[in-house]
Amino acid sequence: MPDKPSLDFYYEFASTYSYLTAMRIDGLAGQAGVAVAWRPFLLGPIFAAQGWTTSPFNLYPAKGRYMVRDIERIAKARGRTFVMPAVFPANGLAAARIALSGEAAGWTNDFSRRVYEAQFEHAADISNVDVLASLLKGMNLDPVTVLAQANAPETKDRLRAQSARAAELGVFGAPSFITPDGELFWGDDRLEHALAWTLGHKPD
Amino acid sequence: MPDKPSLDFYYEFASTYSYLTAMRIDGLAGQAGVAVAWRPFLLGPIFAAQGWTTSPFNLYPAKGRYMVRDIERIAKARGRTFVMPAVFPANGLAAARIALSGEAAGWTNDFSRRVYEAQFEHAADISNVDVLASLLKGMNLDPVTVLAQANAPETKDRLRAQSARAAELGVFGAPSFITPDGELFWGDDRLEHALAWTLGHKPD
Repeated sequence: MPDKPSLDFYYEFASTYSYLTAMRIDGLAGQAGVAVAWRPFLLGPIFAAQGWTTSPFNLYPAKGRYMVRDIERIAKARGRTFVMPAVFPANGLAAARIALSGEAAGWTNDFSRRVYEAQFEHAADISNVDVLASLLKGMNLDPVTVLAQANAPETKDRLRAQSARAAELGVFGAPSFITPDGELFWGDDRLEHALAWTLGHKPD
Repeated sequence: MPDKPSLDFYYEFASTYSYLTAMRIDGLAGQAGVAVAWRPFLLGPIFAAQGWTTSPFNLYPAKGRYMVRDIERIAKARGRTFVMPAVFPANGLAAARIALSGEAAGWTNDFSRRVYEAQFEHAADISNVDVLASLLKGMNLDPVTVLAQANAPETKDRLRAQSARAAELGVFGAPSFITPDGELFWGDDRLEHALAWTLGHKPD
């Protein structure tokens, strides 16, 4: 049997729309017969290159107010309750390094969902290492071991490389999806399009 | 029989995503039993207030390249062929004044669709009054009469007021939809949500 086609899912931990996707992508892709490669990356350097010093939702308040309402509506329709954390955007660097270091053991997706749930449903501060350690304990992982690996130079380099790769692929926001043939889709509302494209359903 | 509920559709002629919506909103709303109030407005003053001197798709090239591809894909899936005009964003002031002046006679939607089709399927320059006059002729309207009304101070004031009203309602981009109870939805991909909300289908 041939391998399932695989969709790259680029996500940033501070991103509210990435949260929406993280909570549903494995289920939806599984039904579609598509594998998902979870690719945590940092949007900060990409925003900085565009001259932004913070989230566009902070730079443009009308857009920020709308985003909160939009996410609330969509989360509710999916049976979830969204709350904004006190600090937005959160610094997701530590979470991204941990998520990446879980790739070999296969818990990147599980950990990432827990980070999003803590941040956007319980308003936890995910820049706080104690918060992240507690999530790891909930997964029966040893925080000391995991954090040591997350902070190893090799993990730091891989996260930098993955973020640079995202920019090379044309990523300018999150979530973003890259299909096996290199097609870019941006936004939680394009997840279905990206899955269909991955399966070869392209408009013509 | 009670009147149909009505959805306000705020659109800017230079906006590619407004084009996508303009070509389908009357059909979709008709099926849903919702009336559509076509509200041409100018996004320029709203962008200027955010410190933008042109379209964000020009300010942020990666986003601009993605937008073109995204619109191409969606238009194709809907049986349409999108092309970018030579000048983007076009100055849509004259078109917006004409569209507004057609409200009483009921051809605002027909004219607006023709403007979008000319611009985004035939790469016409819609800032050119001759182009607009030719579209009016195609509708069996007299361009001289229509342009006189479009350029009357009353029409200019109404367009200014409608653009100011959009900003007051929280509009920061186009297309935007305002439901009878004041809920704002932004983007062609939120049209279905806006129609459902207008019919009282709200997540709870």
